[in-house]
Amino acid sequence: MPGNTFGTTFKVTTWGESHGKAIGAVIDGCPPGLKISEADIQKEVNRRRPAEFSKISTTRREKDQVEILSGVFEGKTTGTPISIIVRNEDARSKDYSKIKDTYRPGHADLTYDLKYGFRDYRGGGRSSGRETLGRVIAGAIAKKYLKENYKTEIYGHTIQIANIKAKTFTKSFIENNELRCADKTVAKKMQEHIEKMRFQEGDSVGAIIEVVIKNPKAGLGNPVFDKLDADLAKAMMSIGAIKGVEIGSGFDVANLKGSENNDQMHSKNGKTQFLNNHSGGILGGISTGADITIKLAVKPVPSISKELQTITKNGKNTKIKTLGRHDCCLAPRIIPVAESMAAITLVDKLLTKW
Amino acid sequence: MPGNTFGTTFKVTTWGESHGKAIGAVIDGCPPGLKISEADIQKEVNRRRPAEFSKISTTRREKDQVEILSGVFEGKTTGTPISIIVRNEDARSKDYSKIKDTYRPGHADLTYDLKYGFRDYRGGGRSSGRETLGRVIAGAIAKKYLKENYKTEIYGHTIQIANIKAKTFTKSFIENNELRCADKTVAKKMQEHIEKMRFQEGDSVGAIIEVVIKNPKAGLGNPVFDKLDADLAKAMMSIGAIKGVEIGSGFDVANLKGSENNDQMHSKNGKTQFLNNHSGGILGGISTGADITIKLAVKPVPSISKELQTITKNGKNTKIKTLGRHDCCLAPRIIPVAESMAAITLVDKLLTKW
Amino acid sequence: MPGNTFGTTFKVTTWGESHGKAIGAVIDGCPPGLKISEADIQKEVNRRRPAEFSKISTTRREKDQVEILSGVFEGKTTGTPISIIVRNEDARSKDYSKIKDTYRPGHADLTYDLKYGFRDYRGGGRSSGRETLGRVIAGAIAKKYLKENYKTEIYGHTIQIANIKAKTFTKSFIENNELRCADKTVAKKMQEHIEKMRFQEGDSVGAIIEVVIKNPKAGLGNPVFDKLDADLAKAMMSIGAIKGVEIGSGFDVANLKGSENNDQMHSKNGKTQFLNNHSGGILGGISTGADITIKLAVKPVPSISKELQTITKNGKNTKIKTLGRHDCCLAPRIIPVAESMAAITLVDKLLTKW
Amino acid sequence: MPGNTFGTTFKVTTWGESHGKAIGAVIDGCPPGLKISEADIQKEVNRRRPAEFSKISTTRREKDQVEILSGVFEGKTTGTPISIIVRNEDARSKDYSKIKDTYRPGHADLTYDLKYGFRDYRGGGRSSGRETLGRVIAGAIAKKYLKENYKTEIYGHTIQIANIKAKTFTKSFIENNELRCADKTVAKKMQEHIEKMRFQEGDSVGAIIEVVIKNPKAGLGNPVFDKLDADLAKAMMSIGAIKGVEIGSGFDVANLKGSENNDQMHSKNGKTQFLNNHSGGILGGISTGADITIKLAVKPVPSISKELQTITKNGKNTKIKTLGRHDCCLAPRIIPVAESMAAITLVDKLLTKW
Repeated sequence: MPGNTFGTTFKVTTWGESHGKAIGAVIDGCPPGLKISEADIQKEVNRRRPAEFSKISTTRREKDQVEILSGVFEGKTTGTPISIIVRNEDARSKDYSKIKDTYRPGHADLTYDLKYGFRDYRGGGRSSGRETLGRVIAGAIAKKYLKENYKTEIYGHTIQIANIKAKTFTKSFIENNELRCADKTVAKKMQEHIEKMRFQEGDSVGAIIEVVIKNPKAGLGNPVFDKLDADLAKAMMSIGAIKGVEIGSGFDVANLKGSENNDQMHSKNGKTQFLNNHSGGILGGISTGADITIKLAVKPVPSISKELQTITKNGKNTKIKTLGRHDCCLAPRIIPVAESMAAITLVDKLLTKW
Repeated sequence: MPGNTFGTTFKVTTWGESHGKAIGAVIDGCPPGLKISEADIQKEVNRRRPAEFSKISTTRREKDQVEILSGVFEGKTTGTPISIIVRNEDARSKDYSKIKDTYRPGHADLTYDLKYGFRDYRGGGRSSGRETLGRVIAGAIAKKYLKENYKTEIYGHTIQIANIKAKTFTKSFIENNELRCADKTVAKKMQEHIEKMRFQEGDSVGAIIEVVIKNPKAGLGNPVFDKLDADLAKAMMSIGAIKGVEIGSGFDVANLKGSENNDQMHSKNGKTQFLNNHSGGILGGISTGADITIKLAVKPVPSISKELQTITKNGKNTKIKTLGRHDCCLAPRIIPVAESMAAITLVDKLLTKW
Repeated sequence: MPGNTFGTTFKVTTWGESHGKAIGAVIDGCPPGLKISEADIQKEVNRRRPAEFSKISTTRREKDQVEILSGVFEGKTTGTPISIIVRNEDARSKDYSKIKDTYRPGHADLTYDLKYGFRDYRGGGRSSGRETLGRVIAGAIAKKYLKENYKTEIYGHTIQIANIKAKTFTKSFIENNELRCADKTVAKKMQEHIEKMRFQEGDSVGAIIEVVIKNPKAGLGNPVFDKLDADLAKAMMSIGAIKGVEIGSGFDVANLKGSENNDQMHSKNGKTQFLNNHSGGILGGISTGADITIKLAVKPVPSISKELQTITKNGKNTKIKTLGRHDCCLAPRIIPVAESMAAITLVDKLLTKW
Repeated sequence: MPGNTFGTTFKVTTWGESHGKAIGAVIDGCPPGLKISEADIQKEVNRRRPAEFSKISTTRREKDQVEILSGVFEGKTTGTPISIIVRNEDARSKDYSKIKDTYRPGHADLTYDLKYGFRDYRGGGRSSGRETLGRVIAGAIAKKYLKENYKTEIYGHTIQIANIKAKTFTKSFIENNELRCADKTVAKKMQEHIEKMRFQEGDSVGAIIEVVIKNPKAGLGNPVFDKLDADLAKAMMSIGAIKGVEIGSGFDVANLKGSENNDQMHSKNGKTQFLNNHSGGILGGISTGADITIKLAVKPVPSISKELQTITKNGKNTKIKTLGRHDCCLAPRIIPVAESMAAITLVDKLLTKW
């Protein structure tokens, strides 16, 4: 249970610390014959990078240049493990030496020491958001597999930041604003709110994002422990900042009657249609073929410049401000990560029929 | 990925259909020397059974008598697999023959046929809530292990039914009302609401429950994919009716600033105290030692006596009322199941240190 | 790593002690739609039972009556877990109470106590050969799946007992003699030798058996750790008495030159033929389509009536004769077990393509 | 079941093709605090490299320089995944283009195409012996863990080449001759035989090697499918050229009586001693504490300069000589690989108690 591998048939192993030499992923079980290039992967990796000239993201600037080391031959996957690495370049480890012995609230510093008795304190080590780079690398391959073989597409968008909620939905707008919000007017308000929180208050903000799997194959998932929704929940909750997962109507089901929540069915031209999608495309742990919808609660970035109470490694009370280069709101950069985890989960289910 | 096993070191495999001959569980990896009796398990199994004379639960009456077939010798576990079965007795399969070819909305009928092309339609077969009996059997052992070795206790309670929310908390009251609500006044209102929905409207209701793990060992869980919260999310979402999972403050984090959401720390008499518990006892995927809190969205029972639109196996449009013997609100009976999944997850983490 | 489950996609979990209430298996991941009956399974289970009126086998007489409890509906598998049990009947546990505190040489008594500190000493508990009953139950299903879907058949035969070696091969004779030897003349000599060892010397004998997989699908297995031969080796070595495994020419390859050991290929009428089968049907961990041949070393039964030196649980030197009801040579009864493990391994590989 | 990962708690994933950019391993689940350096690993990697000026090994000259990319901080493991790579340098891929469409007998060319329909034909791709470099990298860490924590040591030696068998045993001589044979006189004969086979006959030779685990912890392994011997058998048979595995007396048990094969026990000064070690240190799948002994059959290198019959990808009959740079006898270079697999298996068992 060492825990750096996800999946059973399409297995993704990630490795690498924030301030180590490199970050990488090994993808084992990818079927042969899939066309894949470094450019395909770079494109997704770039979506995870902070926007250039961003006012709301970390100022750490990594090129994140991907290099495929194995498993691809003459432009196609061979069925053997695909190893991909990205070298770290802009790591300023001395920024972190002062927090070597002090636990940052909201971070994994304390729990790492509780578990391992020892940690790579530079930039959060393995619990850094930088770990998700390996997930996006693997997700790029999974997404391509889904698109080429099943015309399944996955996208995410920001639906709430603090108490500002998206009201309209224009898909094409998502990738045209730094927040990946599909509501143009609201996106602007979100941006202003984040800038205010960052520059005036030295604080950070939480958010809610939605991930949609369009046109998934029906019949994926298993009926008991390995339900598709169970594995998606694990996939999503395994992303550092996620504190809540909803499938379909999620917590709203508490307020629904059975007659409202049951998605009635209708057959039209031989195709099954659901009159609603409260189930979020999954019934009894198995995909219905309707779109799969997932909502995720994203906690505010724990690194803030406000002073908070904490303790040292030796149990002394002290105070800390977390300086360094940090995001203020994780929503936009977590979206490609969540999409990736959805894609990896789906491909894993696709490749093991029973 | 056949999916009827949960856990890596403490492995639970469940089997059995609602209207088959029996239901059971095999628990593999339980350490030797744990005192366990059929009575220990029966006690938890009975908590899952519908309350006697209940007005709001199924009228199916099963004794659910547990029989230990292996792995326990002279009253103690031996370290070998523990096989436990319960024979089904009160199965009225003919109730179901009429829905053999018609898909009940909100149920897994359609998706089973999509996946397997064939299903045991009697009582929902393997997707019946009756499957959870095996989980409670295994959970009883896990709970005893946690209590005896770590003084860890797990309990659940109903915090919302429809829009009626618990406001006060009296722990001792939980097991003294059919709804397992810790607020005496609210419990009565919930009961009245459910009775009204059932008898006047022929409908069902959703709910929110909370599961609390008191006094968990610190240092459990792994930092990347196998985060403690990720595995708990999977465990919970693998329960049929669950559509949402929150750890700690869950979706409320969207509205919190980093300075609010970060649980500040304080050392007192050599013990670390958190000034808050927004994180729900887990940071970076590893337990802090603070209580672990989980909230779960429970969908309304899909089986209702209102007529709904649906389709047949052959794609014809039709209507259906789901008769039979059903619960109206799953919250109280799902609580022992959710506690069990929490216990199983925790023991699994405990037994694999790295 | 509790170790009572074999396989990844076609997962077999066995449970039960020799003198416990019952023995059983849960098969998870069997595809839906396979016709299977209790009679199909009983037939294979009966092959594992000691021959009636046998002079060379245990006198314990169990009916070994199988009961399918789940996963089969209207005569066909449903894709959900298949739970099958056999009740123990003729267990005479008091035979064993005297060895409660004394370790039998060649048995697992010592190692169980080293590992678990505690054991079910009755009849060897879980390390008894009786555990293999669960494997044969699962193997019966795997064999049927292979035969119906791929026309693959698996059989085993005894090729050596002590220094008596089979020289001729008449397949139809295998199931017509208690030793499952395909050489009629040699079978008689083997029988005489065993009777002599048992009745005159109170000793037991070792053997070599061969398992042949006829007409396996080509392309099964994975190239690195999960080679088909690696998983077959594990499957076979996991049977209690097996101390050696050979694939194809096995240890004879030490004496071969590359030019001899390389199986040359020839194409005839569009079909690939191998001019030899030193590789035993597997190259680079993947099946070639040629017959897969496996040889297994079977150790002499450790339970003998000769007195041997040993120690007690408390470390005192003592002597022991192992009385009770035992086989003298395991070869014939281990054959259905080895066939079963081969079948389970093959189906597991078949069901996960990558 | 993609198959490039070995182990459950101490998980080793290898990747990389013979003529790809690099070869590597990710070790997940290594406990924190183990001192490890690139030099520690390089030392073992160098043992796998062909001897300098060797007359009997491949002339491909790789520096095999290891680089640790993650999981080690300030000279110690952190508990997070350890990623290590070696860049390929001396790959002459054009040597292989002529065999792109012709299947080399004894190689995996045919089976790769049967499975994947497509392969990296350069130097055998993933089925090349070069893959084992990743195993030796991981094995170096496992060996160090065993030595520092349990004083367990593992060594291998060549006991037979063709029909030339070692008769004496001088441990210190093993690493002092290219063949890793512990019998000085015999080593010379073996060397002469190989040179003759290589230069006069253009052929290759098979061998038998022995791996010994000195001073293993008692109580390792599980009693049923995950027996220590079963997992060792899988570990060993997963090495390309291995066709047979024996534990303890192996196939010799066929000729032994129970009274001979049972290792009698004696207690001396509170320590259990075995009067013999036919069991090879394992009873009922669990280590006794006695030395674990394993013998392995190593097939002759399939690449030889003699012409053999074969077929093309399109099923045409043809002939082939396998030129290129190859070993003539794999025994000496396979020894560090087999030691590594033994070490990895043992650590995996050590880290999961139940």
